[in-house]
Amino acid sequence: MPTTLKRFESVFPQLIRDLSDHCKQYKLPTQALTWFEESLQHNTVGGKCNRGMSVVDTSALLLKRDLTDDEYFRSATLGWMIELLQAFFLVSDDIMDSSKTRRGSPCWYLMPNVGMIAINDAFMLESAIYILLKKYFRQDKNYVDLMELFHEVTFQTELGQACDLLTAPEDHVDLDNFSLEKYTFIVIYKTAYYSFYLPVALALHFCGMATEKNLKQAHDILIPMGEYFQVQDDYLDNYADPETLGKIGTDIQDNKCSWLVNQALKRATKEQRAVLEQHYGRKNKDDEAKVKALFNDLQLDQVYHAYEEEKVGDIRKHIAEVDESEGLKKEVFEEFLRKIYKRSK
Amino acid sequence: MPTTLKRFESVFPQLIRDLSDHCKQYKLPTQALTWFEESLQHNTVGGKCNRGMSVVDTSALLLKRDLTDDEYFRSATLGWMIELLQAFFLVSDDIMDSSKTRRGSPCWYLMPNVGMIAINDAFMLESAIYILLKKYFRQDKNYVDLMELFHEVTFQTELGQACDLLTAPEDHVDLDNFSLEKYTFIVIYKTAYYSFYLPVALALHFCGMATEKNLKQAHDILIPMGEYFQVQDDYLDNYADPETLGKIGTDIQDNKCSWLVNQALKRATKEQRAVLEQHYGRKNKDDEAKVKALFNDLQLDQVYHAYEEEKVGDIRKHIAEVDESEGLKKEVFEEFLRKIYKRSK
Repeated sequence: MPTTLKRFESVFPQLIRDLSDHCKQYKLPTQALTWFEESLQHNTVGGKCNRGMSVVDTSALLLKRDLTDDEYFRSATLGWMIELLQAFFLVSDDIMDSSKTRRGSPCWYLMPNVGMIAINDAFMLESAIYILLKKYFRQDKNYVDLMELFHEVTFQTELGQACDLLTAPEDHVDLDNFSLEKYTFIVIYKTAYYSFYLPVALALHFCGMATEKNLKQAHDILIPMGEYFQVQDDYLDNYADPETLGKIGTDIQDNKCSWLVNQALKRATKEQRAVLEQHYGRKNKDDEAKVKALFNDLQLDQVYHAYEEEKVGDIRKHIAEVDESEGLKKEVFEEFLRKIYKRSK
Repeated sequence: MPTTLKRFESVFPQLIRDLSDHCKQYKLPTQALTWFEESLQHNTVGGKCNRGMSVVDTSALLLKRDLTDDEYFRSATLGWMIELLQAFFLVSDDIMDSSKTRRGSPCWYLMPNVGMIAINDAFMLESAIYILLKKYFRQDKNYVDLMELFHEVTFQTELGQACDLLTAPEDHVDLDNFSLEKYTFIVIYKTAYYSFYLPVALALHFCGMATEKNLKQAHDILIPMGEYFQVQDDYLDNYADPETLGKIGTDIQDNKCSWLVNQALKRATKEQRAVLEQHYGRKNKDDEAKVKALFNDLQLDQVYHAYEEEKVGDIRKHIAEVDESEGLKKEVFEEFLRKIYKRSK
């Protein structure tokens, strides 16, 4: 039985206490301590926690049994570290993208009295990962590997973000700068590593099964799966029913280097390219409608469905070929794929 | 013979190449690679490198001999990691403080096309530390300790910055929020750990002398020394000749929780406090002049000189009592103190 958000969330108050105690040992003045606790709460809790929970679920699948309470707590703690890493990125991404809301609340930097202090708060969310890692995993033989894994995935995500920010600045449209190669780099580095590879790599370490072979097999399936997930995201941004999706897509107006615009650029005639040049990345409904019409002319929904079938077929083939001799389980990947295949939100 | 800035700087191009190679292995698109190299150059190089160079100098003092070329390179690499850590903080501090220039150039976030991308660039400067640590120190028996040391000092500096930002927001003057206790917390955490303790702790690790006793002795001398250094900084901000100092002090106008204002608050009559309430933290010369006059009335320069003599006497006493049996040398601390005692800039 997969874990529940409720049980996963029940672990976090202890982690806040641990971080709080760590600060108290330094005699941090109360005002700053309370601030840190509020930042942890506001920025880390309240999401779906798919990434964090999948560390717990993957661990149970790998061990082929229910986790003990202690195992649950420790694997969930690793899961919360992913959520902290994501919080670190989201708090700062929201500033960089001038976003307004996140998970239905105002973005942290827009909350009363926060502003640019949010940058330092983001740093502290990242630091929290290593404080918890030291508290709970210092004795573990994988401690160095776990630290290195977080360092590497953090840097990979930063590279993806760097490439994204440089390729598609919100205020300067230059479609020559877009390409499917850059698109692929961005989605793999900015999303796939921390969202797909990291949870399984952590679970493998947790279960003592992080052999080179297992990590490579996990990588070679989960990175394409993360790529597929992000392409889906871009597809849904334009084609999903906003009611079902829970938000109104803004990729066209925001000049995003999305999968759709890259496919359009690949297929556009000279005239169609001119339409994109003229209307993509403009902050109004009329320009957006012109781009949407062009996407329809190019039948990008069909291009997407063909991509989806091919990519998922490919991933399924890879899963079928998984060598389970060192403890890895096909089920781990089937579970990930089941959650995202043909999702509508 | 202490090292020279020239020799220390000659190490950095190799480190840029290492970081660049690391990115190339990920097939980072050229535009983002060039950007990262420029950020490394602009934000890490061009300062005095006192912190970085003191890792090299301290190592030579501890080993009681000149370093081999390889030892020079490796200890300088540790030194550059402090400079990278500082770059990470300065790039983001400049955004949080709305600063305009840094080391005589525009702040990174104010450079053409940079803006809020600087936040992600700051993250990448921090990540560079761990990439270099892994490349050059992975085989070292102190590798885990070095990672943990950087994690801890990073978090301590973030706590100091958090407390500083909350105590003295630029746009909201509240002198009730100031206190000498908070002041001391801020300067120790925001400055002393990374500027004074970290270089010596790194050198101790580098020389294989990082025993618990040596680290504690270094801590107990260098943290008070860092505190003294920052009090000096605050004194010089108001009392130094701007010509000699190389800049015009702005602490009063910027509502800084400085040593001087805390001393003034401690000594002020009810009427004098009202003067502070009315004129501190206002962005104009007239208000500033009123505060400066009050500082003079309270003879804060004499208060400072008395503090300096007492504090330095205390530090000297501590240095004289250093137990050198595990390889630590009094000279290390004498050298640090010599560089800052009665400095005028």
